[in-house]
Amino acid sequence: MKAYALLGGPEEEWPQNIKNDFALAQQKNDLLIGVDRGSLLLEEMGLIPDLAIGDFDSLEKSELAKIDSSVPDIRYSSPIKDATDSELMVKIAFEDYHVDSLTILGATGGRIDHFLINLFMILNPKINKYAEKITLLDKQNLLNFYIPGQHVINRKAGYNYVGVADLSGVKDLNIEGARYELANYSNSYPLIFGSNEFLPDKDTFEISFKKGTVAIIYSKDINRFHNI
Amino acid sequence: MKAYALLGGPEEEWPQNIKNDFALAQQKNDLLIGVDRGSLLLEEMGLIPDLAIGDFDSLEKSELAKIDSSVPDIRYSSPIKDATDSELMVKIAFEDYHVDSLTILGATGGRIDHFLINLFMILNPKINKYAEKITLLDKQNLLNFYIPGQHVINRKAGYNYVGVADLSGVKDLNIEGARYELANYSNSYPLIFGSNEFLPDKDTFEISFKKGTVAIIYSKDINRFHNI
Repeated sequence: MKAYALLGGPEEEWPQNIKNDFALAQQKNDLLIGVDRGSLLLEEMGLIPDLAIGDFDSLEKSELAKIDSSVPDIRYSSPIKDATDSELMVKIAFEDYHVDSLTILGATGGRIDHFLINLFMILNPKINKYAEKITLLDKQNLLNFYIPGQHVINRKAGYNYVGVADLSGVKDLNIEGARYELANYSNSYPLIFGSNEFLPDKDTFEISFKKGTVAIIYSKDINRFHNI
Repeated sequence: MKAYALLGGPEEEWPQNIKNDFALAQQKNDLLIGVDRGSLLLEEMGLIPDLAIGDFDSLEKSELAKIDSSVPDIRYSSPIKDATDSELMVKIAFEDYHVDSLTILGATGGRIDHFLINLFMILNPKINKYAEKITLLDKQNLLNFYIPGQHVINRKAGYNYVGVADLSGVKDLNIEGARYELANYSNSYPLIFGSNEFLPDKDTFEISFKKGTVAIIYSKDINRFHNI
């Protein structure tokens, strides 16, 4: 079973057709998860999440009542907590629902502390074991995550650029068969290699590393702006 | 002298009144910097940057000609380079222009590899020595950066939340006098403590740490969404 989770990030950053994609997923019996305000946003699209997680402290009573009366599985988190709602969601998806993959939307844009928490939760050892099953998705970016080993990175249609992000410090990172290669790179802190590309005649390249967590950031230009 | 740099990130993320603020800065003889497409965006606002930096490879010839004929100091970077245009900009601002502070705009939104590069360049040892003089600013967030030591964090009007982001692993991080305190926290990888707050009767709190780089992320809700 696949799972899709909507967090409370701004709608402007959502991929197009999110409503249809979620509806289609539910028809296939995939799991639809709302995290905090994301639960309400799903209901506003006419979709009932299968699972809702949060402290719901930003919701009006009537909004929470609507979720409470419709969602089959609601998990209330404490406002003061060790794990964020996003982390709790990942754990419940994999440990209670045993999903095969999890795509997280609504994680980007808006408050930068929120985005960074949602991105860097992947380094939390309780989450990191599921890293390779997690995708972060918005209208312009798709992120996959990798733990140490050898990995084949596949071209994805519509994305012109691919960044390789060392999120935590890395040992012996190699990038082979991409436009810009890298050999045995080690560092003790995060560093992002942006704007790499697949070679014209290849749909894959390889990465390998011995320690750390690496994100592959697929991205596209939506307007002509770019900022490095 | 203060400096303001505009990178090429999407306009939707810029603070309001950016044009007036830049115009006012130039009247005060502060330094206005355009980085790559940011140079053109400044000219489109009717402002001539004092300094333009980039490989300008995303610009049309006519666009580049416009910059070339108007900007007093243009530094061309190589498209294949060790330093990003943002890093080059920071170095030139502090080392050639000896500015006292640098506020970077247009660094957020759009491509996540770009944003993370602009954020994590602060860990580059060649940039890190200027960390405490650098501010990242968009419509919803203001980021300050700190190197090891004791620091007083000041309330800023209009920002409800304050996150404390360990960007690289940290030793003995303390947060004192804020709503959520922290004592002697150490970690080997980035971790973000979001949604902290100033106490109602206080306009400051203190942080201290012995190793690492910490970002203070001031943020506000623009809409009602939030995502953790």
